[in-house]
Amino acid sequence: MTDASTRNGARPVVLLTGFEPFAGEALNPSGEIVRVLDGEDVAGHRIVGAILPVSFSAAPSRMDALVAAHDPALVLALGQAGGRSGLSLERVAINLIDARIADNEGARPIDATVVTGGPGAYFTTLPVKAIELRLRALGVPVAASLSAGSFVCNQVFYALAHRLAGSPVRGGFIHVPWLPEQAAVHAGEPCMSLEAMVAGVRAAIACALAVERDAAIPGGAIH
Amino acid sequence: MTDASTRNGARPVVLLTGFEPFAGEALNPSGEIVRVLDGEDVAGHRIVGAILPVSFSAAPSRMDALVAAHDPALVLALGQAGGRSGLSLERVAINLIDARIADNEGARPIDATVVTGGPGAYFTTLPVKAIELRLRALGVPVAASLSAGSFVCNQVFYALAHRLAGSPVRGGFIHVPWLPEQAAVHAGEPCMSLEAMVAGVRAAIACALAVERDAAIPGGAIH
Amino acid sequence: MTDASTRNGARPVVLLTGFEPFAGEALNPSGEIVRVLDGEDVAGHRIVGAILPVSFSAAPSRMDALVAAHDPALVLALGQAGGRSGLSLERVAINLIDARIADNEGARPIDATVVTGGPGAYFTTLPVKAIELRLRALGVPVAASLSAGSFVCNQVFYALAHRLAGSPVRGGFIHVPWLPEQAAVHAGEPCMSLEAMVAGVRAAIACALAVERDAAIPGGAIH
Amino acid sequence: MTDASTRNGARPVVLLTGFEPFAGEALNPSGEIVRVLDGEDVAGHRIVGAILPVSFSAAPSRMDALVAAHDPALVLALGQAGGRSGLSLERVAINLIDARIADNEGARPIDATVVTGGPGAYFTTLPVKAIELRLRALGVPVAASLSAGSFVCNQVFYALAHRLAGSPVRGGFIHVPWLPEQAAVHAGEPCMSLEAMVAGVRAAIACALAVERDAAIPGGAIH
Repeated sequence: MTDASTRNGARPVVLLTGFEPFAGEALNPSGEIVRVLDGEDVAGHRIVGAILPVSFSAAPSRMDALVAAHDPALVLALGQAGGRSGLSLERVAINLIDARIADNEGARPIDATVVTGGPGAYFTTLPVKAIELRLRALGVPVAASLSAGSFVCNQVFYALAHRLAGSPVRGGFIHVPWLPEQAAVHAGEPCMSLEAMVAGVRAAIACALAVERDAAIPGGAIH
Repeated sequence: MTDASTRNGARPVVLLTGFEPFAGEALNPSGEIVRVLDGEDVAGHRIVGAILPVSFSAAPSRMDALVAAHDPALVLALGQAGGRSGLSLERVAINLIDARIADNEGARPIDATVVTGGPGAYFTTLPVKAIELRLRALGVPVAASLSAGSFVCNQVFYALAHRLAGSPVRGGFIHVPWLPEQAAVHAGEPCMSLEAMVAGVRAAIACALAVERDAAIPGGAIH
Repeated sequence: MTDASTRNGARPVVLLTGFEPFAGEALNPSGEIVRVLDGEDVAGHRIVGAILPVSFSAAPSRMDALVAAHDPALVLALGQAGGRSGLSLERVAINLIDARIADNEGARPIDATVVTGGPGAYFTTLPVKAIELRLRALGVPVAASLSAGSFVCNQVFYALAHRLAGSPVRGGFIHVPWLPEQAAVHAGEPCMSLEAMVAGVRAAIACALAVERDAAIPGGAIH
Repeated sequence: MTDASTRNGARPVVLLTGFEPFAGEALNPSGEIVRVLDGEDVAGHRIVGAILPVSFSAAPSRMDALVAAHDPALVLALGQAGGRSGLSLERVAINLIDARIADNEGARPIDATVVTGGPGAYFTTLPVKAIELRLRALGVPVAASLSAGSFVCNQVFYALAHRLAGSPVRGGFIHVPWLPEQAAVHAGEPCMSLEAMVAGVRAAIACALAVERDAAIPGGAIH
């Protein structure tokens, strides 16, 4: 018996997505991380990287096509969260699109749903607390987060969770800070080196592949 | 034809709840606001105020009993969000309890649901964008928020939304900042005067009673 | 024997200055506080209020003229610090002007001195720690600060300290937050009610008149 | 004619100091940077690194001894500023010691002077605006700062400036953020990689050696 992701004797796949630059930035750290890790082997799995457009109309279907094409054992989507200080392990994808700025095609939907009739939210199926402990032990700044916003990142996270719902395939989303060269133009804003982000994402993938049941430690937020 | 909340010729009711103090504080601004507004008339409705316990085991059933007893036309729950700078109009209640600190009975549940089998999240049915515009025009600091946390505030918000789901009765949650006397012991932390909070909550109630359809302006968060 | 400020049998004067609006704001909380307190009696002293222009060329000479005209027993200058959360008791005035934005006359000096040949800095002669304790006890958010910036506020503070140097007359500067109606247009930014600011400034004046020697408690900043 | 720092035909020296760990931390990024750069050649100058104790009684005399021993052409002192997001180019050293926490010997002086009878403040003699532009161009997060606090960092900065006053030798202070492994235990706090900090400090030294007159661009702070 083989699970789908190992058919044909190939190594199972981890699908890792990032985004193209947006909001006037020259690069997007999530895409840079994907470029570094694409093709790498983690715990017997091959990472397949892909860059998604920052486009409400195109990003979810592109994610869908990637999942269909690669039949991954795990899907991790990354996105940029300028101004945050560490890797943000997103726990909740909400069925809401509300665009404070336009996407890269000029679309700016207001109070729309990601999936008509879908549940209000999906929760990540990654073991976020185990990942948090692991990254902290590695010295990578990290925190869990209860909101991935209402822009394209949240849309892709929700669409992915909707597709994977009911399947055994785990999926989740990590927001990453600005790179130093981006933060330099936003005086006083936090950043992380690409090396530290790559180390954190690699460890998060390894942890998600290894840990069946998340750590039972308190978390969340008071408000 | 009368709607339930006006039966017996009485004025329809707005149920307004706050919380008792927690986390070592001597008071809770949400409870203080309720004390001021209890019994007041807003747009032909009578405000019925109630103080909820900061208790995972008792708070939702207390809210249920209040809704059953008063048959309100509108329910607005308030809670304290120490460190925030203005009134936070919460848009999303999630089906997650994860307690970073113990409640007032010493309970500290981890990664539990609010309602077993309930949807991942409910959205507020208040016209948050109209309220935001209204309060801003009044000079009351305000912002919409995509996360009410995972403590008792979020639990009560979710439980309320779950109960009201499918009914025409609107319900929502507003987080409020510390009072000046609380912020004074947290040097450098923001606060609001009780008067400004009361003015903001009163205006939010009036707006929720008057505005049928929310304003179609962009909002949300990029991440 | 009468000290100068009581000559002619008049009550001694506390000179209290604020600023006119700047940076596109419609009002300046420091000026509003002065309007409320002007003429009030505090501990046997009469408050004389004055509004200074936000002008590098005019503000210091205006302060000089006010001190010469009123021969005050105490001088307290106020200024707006948008984004701060409480009253900021400034401890240090530096001999530097570096204008990130233009003043109200369009001037934007770079790396100039306030007083040619003056010392690098003057320290406040107000008992800031005693004031901090007093305001905290009153429930007014307050913190001491080691930098008043390098704009007109710092210039006036330095010019005042330079003039009072060697005299027994105490002088100092307090930065105040935005008013609620200002913060409302800067979503998520902190503010204080005018009433709380007035109460805090009144108490600071009373404390400065009553306390000879500042409280010997640790303060300052690690960095 | 040779200037003192090139006597005996040796390369002129840049004295670079950092601090030992304090406040319960296992390491201090300023010391780690010094370890990496010690002995390196920058623009024909040899970097001499030294680690100072976090001690009010010992640090200034140690700095004095280092300057006497090495007769440097430039002195750059580094210190840790946990919670800041980039390199902080300190512009002002004040004649004030006020210790919010104890130093590594348990001393906690209150409202003392660094040098009795010294001026209120010294300004850095580094070309901070040129350095800021240079580091930004390199993609290193950086900002100028008007306060170095009132702890041992400010004391050493003031003592150094006092010693160098009137001499042609330039001296200054840069505060650096936490390392990723430190920030990981302070959830959500910013950090920088050691590599980025080293690159920034190296470039700051090169810039201070090359730039005679600072860039005339606006800076400073409104408050």
